[in-house]
Amino acid sequence: MKKTKLLMLAFLICGAASSQETKNKKSDIDAKVYELLSKMTLEEKVGQMTQITVTIFEDPSKPGYFDAAKLKQGIQDYHIGSILNVPNPGAPTLKRWQETLTAISNEANKSRLKIPVLYGIDAIHGASYTAGATLFPQQIGLAATFNTNLVKRGAEISAYETRASSIPWVFSPDLDFPRNPAWSRMWESFGEDAYLSSQMAVALVNGFEGNNNVGSKYSVASCMKHYIGYGSTTTGKDRTPSIIPERLLRQYDLTIYQAAIKAGAKSVMISSGEINGTPVHASKHLITDILKKELGFKGVVVTDWKDIIYLNTRHKVAETKRDAVRIAVMAGIDMSMVPEEFSFYTDLVNLVQSGEVPMSRIDDAVTRILRMKFELNLFQNTVADLKDYPKFGSAEHIQEAYNTAAESITLLKNKEAVLPLNKTEKILVTGATANSMKYLNGGWSYNWQGENSDTYAADKSTILEAFQNKLGKENVLYTAGADLEKENDVEIQKAVDLAKDASKIVLCLGEKNYTETPGDISNLYMSPSQIKLALALSKLNKPIILVLNEGRPRLISDFEDKMSAVVQCYLPGNEGGRALVDILYGDVNPSGRLPYNYPRYPNSLEKYNRKYTESISEGEQNNDATYEKSYLPQFEFGTGLSYTTFSYSNLKIDKTEINNTDEINVSVDVTNSGKRAGKESVLLYLSDNFASITPEFKSLKRFEKISLEPNETKTIKFTLNQKDLQFVNEDLKWIAEKGTFTIQIANQKKDFLLR
Amino acid sequence: MKKTKLLMLAFLICGAASSQETKNKKSDIDAKVYELLSKMTLEEKVGQMTQITVTIFEDPSKPGYFDAAKLKQGIQDYHIGSILNVPNPGAPTLKRWQETLTAISNEANKSRLKIPVLYGIDAIHGASYTAGATLFPQQIGLAATFNTNLVKRGAEISAYETRASSIPWVFSPDLDFPRNPAWSRMWESFGEDAYLSSQMAVALVNGFEGNNNVGSKYSVASCMKHYIGYGSTTTGKDRTPSIIPERLLRQYDLTIYQAAIKAGAKSVMISSGEINGTPVHASKHLITDILKKELGFKGVVVTDWKDIIYLNTRHKVAETKRDAVRIAVMAGIDMSMVPEEFSFYTDLVNLVQSGEVPMSRIDDAVTRILRMKFELNLFQNTVADLKDYPKFGSAEHIQEAYNTAAESITLLKNKEAVLPLNKTEKILVTGATANSMKYLNGGWSYNWQGENSDTYAADKSTILEAFQNKLGKENVLYTAGADLEKENDVEIQKAVDLAKDASKIVLCLGEKNYTETPGDISNLYMSPSQIKLALALSKLNKPIILVLNEGRPRLISDFEDKMSAVVQCYLPGNEGGRALVDILYGDVNPSGRLPYNYPRYPNSLEKYNRKYTESISEGEQNNDATYEKSYLPQFEFGTGLSYTTFSYSNLKIDKTEINNTDEINVSVDVTNSGKRAGKESVLLYLSDNFASITPEFKSLKRFEKISLEPNETKTIKFTLNQKDLQFVNEDLKWIAEKGTFTIQIANQKKDFLLR
Repeated sequence: MKKTKLLMLAFLICGAASSQETKNKKSDIDAKVYELLSKMTLEEKVGQMTQITVTIFEDPSKPGYFDAAKLKQGIQDYHIGSILNVPNPGAPTLKRWQETLTAISNEANKSRLKIPVLYGIDAIHGASYTAGATLFPQQIGLAATFNTNLVKRGAEISAYETRASSIPWVFSPDLDFPRNPAWSRMWESFGEDAYLSSQMAVALVNGFEGNNNVGSKYSVASCMKHYIGYGSTTTGKDRTPSIIPERLLRQYDLTIYQAAIKAGAKSVMISSGEINGTPVHASKHLITDILKKELGFKGVVVTDWKDIIYLNTRHKVAETKRDAVRIAVMAGIDMSMVPEEFSFYTDLVNLVQSGEVPMSRIDDAVTRILRMKFELNLFQNTVADLKDYPKFGSAEHIQEAYNTAAESITLLKNKEAVLPLNKTEKILVTGATANSMKYLNGGWSYNWQGENSDTYAADKSTILEAFQNKLGKENVLYTAGADLEKENDVEIQKAVDLAKDASKIVLCLGEKNYTETPGDISNLYMSPSQIKLALALSKLNKPIILVLNEGRPRLISDFEDKMSAVVQCYLPGNEGGRALVDILYGDVNPSGRLPYNYPRYPNSLEKYNRKYTESISEGEQNNDATYEKSYLPQFEFGTGLSYTTFSYSNLKIDKTEINNTDEINVSVDVTNSGKRAGKESVLLYLSDNFASITPEFKSLKRFEKISLEPNETKTIKFTLNQKDLQFVNEDLKWIAEKGTFTIQIANQKKDFLLR
Repeated sequence: MKKTKLLMLAFLICGAASSQETKNKKSDIDAKVYELLSKMTLEEKVGQMTQITVTIFEDPSKPGYFDAAKLKQGIQDYHIGSILNVPNPGAPTLKRWQETLTAISNEANKSRLKIPVLYGIDAIHGASYTAGATLFPQQIGLAATFNTNLVKRGAEISAYETRASSIPWVFSPDLDFPRNPAWSRMWESFGEDAYLSSQMAVALVNGFEGNNNVGSKYSVASCMKHYIGYGSTTTGKDRTPSIIPERLLRQYDLTIYQAAIKAGAKSVMISSGEINGTPVHASKHLITDILKKELGFKGVVVTDWKDIIYLNTRHKVAETKRDAVRIAVMAGIDMSMVPEEFSFYTDLVNLVQSGEVPMSRIDDAVTRILRMKFELNLFQNTVADLKDYPKFGSAEHIQEAYNTAAESITLLKNKEAVLPLNKTEKILVTGATANSMKYLNGGWSYNWQGENSDTYAADKSTILEAFQNKLGKENVLYTAGADLEKENDVEIQKAVDLAKDASKIVLCLGEKNYTETPGDISNLYMSPSQIKLALALSKLNKPIILVLNEGRPRLISDFEDKMSAVVQCYLPGNEGGRALVDILYGDVNPSGRLPYNYPRYPNSLEKYNRKYTESISEGEQNNDATYEKSYLPQFEFGTGLSYTTFSYSNLKIDKTEINNTDEINVSVDVTNSGKRAGKESVLLYLSDNFASITPEFKSLKRFEKISLEPNETKTIKFTLNQKDLQFVNEDLKWIAEKGTFTIQIANQKKDFLLR
């Protein structure tokens, strides 16, 4: 009786929020969840909350294949609700995935309640753990497109190919908000702007989840990560402490989650880090009070890898593993990525039995997990029928990945129009990243660190191969020139010698493939071996096109002035080499924009939306002076050149004074004033000229990407609302204050007054 | 009637705190303040709150001398209460100071109420704006001594020589808590540890103020600065934004102020920066609620240079200068360093008249200012009688400055005992900092940026001169070798050529003299011109003794492995060259310890009291593993070698379990196990092994500096109390939690349990 009441309560609490699904469908699922939950034992419930890595169930002598007894033990004895993918030995074929998921499904169907096991995977730029899948640019490149339609379409394809692999749940999108560009997962984020990140987050969630149609066989559940503050460690090193006052967390980080939750995101992964001394996995304030209650998030809250155990062994906020389980579950964790043994299960069963964790907390968690399984239609449709997925890895999908790469690549510098290249010129292609798919795909590609891209994507073009395909192998000079890390004067000399026969040099520099802690660095400069190559080549006084192939902005100020052009590729994925070379030859007009400030010096990492005190000189004579202090990034957020030119005119606003309910309509004319068709992202910035919290220099409020033929003009319209004028004050409230604001689009500015 | 009541109220509020002065004396002063305040007009009150720079009153044709009419206007028309020193043209003699202060005093005595004008000065390492004064090491060097007695004695001498200059108020000590070692005023702080900073702060306050005897003609009022968070800007650049959650502000920064306030500090200067978006000058929470109410601070709160105006022009939290005055005064500012015109006076009079600022706020401010003037005995004793100060610049004082420099200089590396040097060896002295007093004194020496030290301290020894004095000029090889900034291959070649005749090389590298914004850097590496010299010399394979003469740890990892010895001088002041050379030759045994982590790489600026997540590797197999991750400073906090060796044994604690009221007594035996007498700072660290806020790896809780003859053993005793076990939790409360703690002294460790 009491149990039923508690269940009903948990059910009502969790079911209260509105959703874009039809109410009927929703209440249908709620009824099923309620019915199922009421039949479950404590052990079955705690099992649902337990996620174990797939490798634990494998036969050690046959990686990638199950030991049936181990799988049976996990599902029948521990009632596990979820399995986490760790690729072993690598990226399986569609057929192998089908076999794997069939085995899991068959075992689950032998259990008492036949609850399907939820399989989750780190497929973050396409179905990146499936052989033959279409791989898109990594997230930082998606942000650089400033094109939400393109990004959403890519997520739809990723969802399609992931479901083709019988997998219903991806640990994507990454909603991290990096404050230090040295962070090893900078490239998994959308860069340094919260508004751009929010818009991209919504595009990915809608793409993955089919606009709130996650039960479709072409949709997957998304997982926002890593709630919250994970991307903001002080040193930039992975899983080290973050310092973020709640005011700033609300002003920036939280807005990205709000947007994704509003779009319907089904799950969230918690940050492995700490904020201000509190590990997020131990924070009831952040998980239960803010995420679940204040934001009304109804989905599943899953830990990151081993993070409950780490409350004991790394963070040292729990004296025992058992206490770590209590702290995390009471903070609001629904599912533990345990993932290599069953201590979470054992400890949590015991904690509930001893009364240290109430059944209501368990029911809240299991309700959320079961609801997601029903919404995903897993009770009907666990394993893919391959006939349903004819477009897996198709030319159509590949073309979309190519388009996305092409719109992401960002032309940062083009002195004396050295680009586009002419096919008749003899080109030297050199540099450590010029001839491997590893550097184009980065981490989380076919496996964790992405070191096997050259095997799995053998049919794709490296940068060098794309040159050779375009010009004929015999017309391209190539030598590696430098290792990523090891200095090698012989190799440099080879490159210098070859360069003598070339009219221009395409120098490909960047970083190894990495993610997480293996990607930690202590020095943001480009590696010395690569700087040495750049300096050696620059002595020849031939035009050098610097191609950057990197997850984060490695400093190039030691030699940037000697480069004629700079092209940022980010990690453009399997089609990136082709897209880059098409841009270099002008077959595609570049249109990416930098989604972060590219720093010039290692101890000057200001963001574009800096405060005035970071821009105004100490010695100013004129109080209105806004000339730069030491704020001098190598390239600023939003930088992105084209082979044509765009001119802006006629900025209009429909009101110069507004009250506190008015919207304000903005329009501007954009003209292609050059000779080629081109795409342009139109960026609207707003400045609050005075505010009780020191205002930002400017902040992005709207953007739209358009295509223009030569001499074509389009009028772009934006509407700003009251929310756009607001900021989070000292009392953690969003408020707008009276006074003047300035709208800026390119070189056009208009002021208005909030009365 | 009403006015009287308000006055009485303000008076009671401000007078309520206990103090170490006798109660009689205190109530005597309170009565005088009350009586005087009750006679004052609004204009006279606001005048007291107005501080103007001395240069405004000067005759432009005769710098350093007053235009009598201007001084009269300031004192009679604007009733100004305070004058700020800006040296013009440089450091006056005692006699000139006497004349200057006599002129001010005479003018003040012509005013209606004859209230003395308070003269304040940036004398931060001795009476550094008086010709012939004794100049001590800058604060970072004081911290490196780990010797509070020595530091206090130095402050007594500084107070003596400042009062000899007729000046009663110094803007010192600096209680900043730098979180980024690139900060241009790192050297004005006590380094990165809050406990060390607190102890040093108390020593300086007691030294300046004569142990709560500030009315003495040998004491000055101290000024804690820059309340609060000023030293913690994110980028390290001066006066740029800081991000410090209040929990951390309380855990670290605020403890330093608490200690200094308890010691009786008479005044405080507010930070020019912002914390989490709020300029400190606009923060009622920080100034009134925390500083005045919670900490019970009864002294004067003064702004920094022009900082009320900057609320309008830089921070942009005030739309007008007038509104900036309202915001700052209502936040709790008592005195405005306006300092170049009278807008503050005019605006504030108007704000009170219009009712926007209540008279009670003015009375609080003026009560504090008048009280300080009475406590300083300024109504009796404004101008020094030079006969009272026979020891000004005396040999006795100079010896104390020498001793302090000698105990600050820190031996960081001494491979194969290359030091001490032998007088018979031929030495090359080279490097940009080897032959100028500017680099030994740094900023705030004779003038703001300290560029005239070579003129004012012409009789003092540069490093080169100290070598020449010890060995004879003919026995020392010297060439500059490098400019601080400009690369010069000819100079380097000269140094390399000269080095061929030397058996060892003393390479003096460092930084220009600077403070505040002119000292901003974007790159923590030592300047390229100096690195080039170091690398060129290292190719000779001769032992190089690297002497660092710098305000902050400029990175040396490009060449540190090629140096045989590394000696950190910091900014040791006028006697620093002599002290250094005496150490290099073993006439003094070095005993300084590094008061900060010396970083190895620019994007790895962890402090010594890091969290475990910054030390534990991602790939650990053993959950208890604490081996280092990427935490790898060049030299760690506390590093400091000696020419003798010290061994530690017999660490004892009197209890292995304590309750929440117990103290714990610790003792350890320290033995001089080498062949020379030496001084050793014994450092006690504590680790809280588990806590609800992620515990620090270790933190300094006690230290004591001792002298030991060869083979001598001393038993050092420390007592830890409950406060030492506490930390600030999420609710901003200081708490201790049950569990085990580990005490560590050198290689000795003991655990105890808090029940």
